[in-house]
Amino acid sequence: MSEEQPLILVTNDDGITAPGIAATVEVMKKLGKVVVVAPDSPQSGMGHAITINKPLRLDKNHQFGPDVDSYQCSGTPADCVKLAVDKVLHRKPDLLVSGVNHGSNSSINVIYSGTMSAAVEGAIEGITAIGFSLLDFSWDADFEASKVFMHKVASNVLKHGLTNGTLLNVNIPKGDLSEIKGIKICRQARAKWVEEFDQRQDPYGRNYFWLTGKFNNLDKGEDTDEWALANNFVSVVPVQFDLTAHHAIGTLNTWDL
Amino acid sequence: MSEEQPLILVTNDDGITAPGIAATVEVMKKLGKVVVVAPDSPQSGMGHAITINKPLRLDKNHQFGPDVDSYQCSGTPADCVKLAVDKVLHRKPDLLVSGVNHGSNSSINVIYSGTMSAAVEGAIEGITAIGFSLLDFSWDADFEASKVFMHKVASNVLKHGLTNGTLLNVNIPKGDLSEIKGIKICRQARAKWVEEFDQRQDPYGRNYFWLTGKFNNLDKGEDTDEWALANNFVSVVPVQFDLTAHHAIGTLNTWDL
Repeated sequence: MSEEQPLILVTNDDGITAPGIAATVEVMKKLGKVVVVAPDSPQSGMGHAITINKPLRLDKNHQFGPDVDSYQCSGTPADCVKLAVDKVLHRKPDLLVSGVNHGSNSSINVIYSGTMSAAVEGAIEGITAIGFSLLDFSWDADFEASKVFMHKVASNVLKHGLTNGTLLNVNIPKGDLSEIKGIKICRQARAKWVEEFDQRQDPYGRNYFWLTGKFNNLDKGEDTDEWALANNFVSVVPVQFDLTAHHAIGTLNTWDL
Repeated sequence: MSEEQPLILVTNDDGITAPGIAATVEVMKKLGKVVVVAPDSPQSGMGHAITINKPLRLDKNHQFGPDVDSYQCSGTPADCVKLAVDKVLHRKPDLLVSGVNHGSNSSINVIYSGTMSAAVEGAIEGITAIGFSLLDFSWDADFEASKVFMHKVASNVLKHGLTNGTLLNVNIPKGDLSEIKGIKICRQARAKWVEEFDQRQDPYGRNYFWLTGKFNNLDKGEDTDEWALANNFVSVVPVQFDLTAHHAIGTLNTWDL
């Protein structure tokens, strides 16, 4: 870290007015110069969507007071990161923080998460990146413990850096600081959602469906994020965007292709 | 494979009227009983988005003739797979094929791709899954060579199966069959898009931005999908949805967290 303050880009997927991102800005201001570029409306479940078929809007606002440059963007979390680097910062920030998400992004949720897609987008662009999520969907969630752990993880990341191509997925249990036992480095649990679409009829007699589902953890490993969170630890999973199943290459080479 | 015909679910991200999915259906009909559940409009760049804030529509149509059950869905490619399994098939299909996409999904594009998100969604649900993409964005692309390679790869996958948690990302070079040298099993190249937002003004004097960019391949490895495609081979990358950077866990455990 240079003697200059680190430049920290903050974004999220719940939108720029969410209490979670305000908690993040409050913490990151202690660690560096903060610039916010976040969606102008909630984007949960957007995965790694990017906007290619319509133009994007980017507008300065004053959401976080006079000492934080803040912009709202009409696009997805990944769009926010792309636009921030190219049109707002004009350089890579020293750290990208996404969140705090209102709700878990542990295990397979990393795939569906707009919060994590912003962090992944940062890592693809060579930016040191962290996604933070609190296991509480409520808009009125209590972020006091989250603030403590965000400070701890982010200051360590600024100090040590991350290997190129690696970012962190940090999930924080619900509850008071005194109830949380500490931080565990984990792997992503093998878990999935079992879909149950709720079928209804509109006033005109046509069917429509709401996506619902039950979370099914198939993985009881004590080295998983699900185990850590169930046992009141903060989970930290190092994440990569090389999706190659390297172990499968040998087998595929034996096929008659 | 049982003596019964395999049940093959076909989807895509270009929408149910795209010529690419028609080519896929034509091939898959030779390999099993085909059911199509695909988006009712183009969904490119949707990544692994799912629809949680609005209801989904699902309507039967006759896009592929009388012997193919076909449904259009108002959601994303991942929504199509979820809805197909829960509300159309009422069981896991023996194979899920997504595509053929009009345009490449090699290297880092696997992250942004709606085509691949449908295949990944299948794999998460324990379904053997393949995403096919042709390196030609044109709506009038020539899918003749693609048909040959789809048949070859899909019949091998039906014969051998895939390890649980692994799916295939298959990209096919543009051109005649005679120009394509064969199939290579590859890893995902380290490449990224360098964003260049095109800034314009609307008729009211407000700025807006179009996402554009240049593809930058940082990885000259001859075992990569980019190398294979540049040398006129079909690339087959085994893909996984465990994003854990397992190699980073040791280092993180040395931090003072």
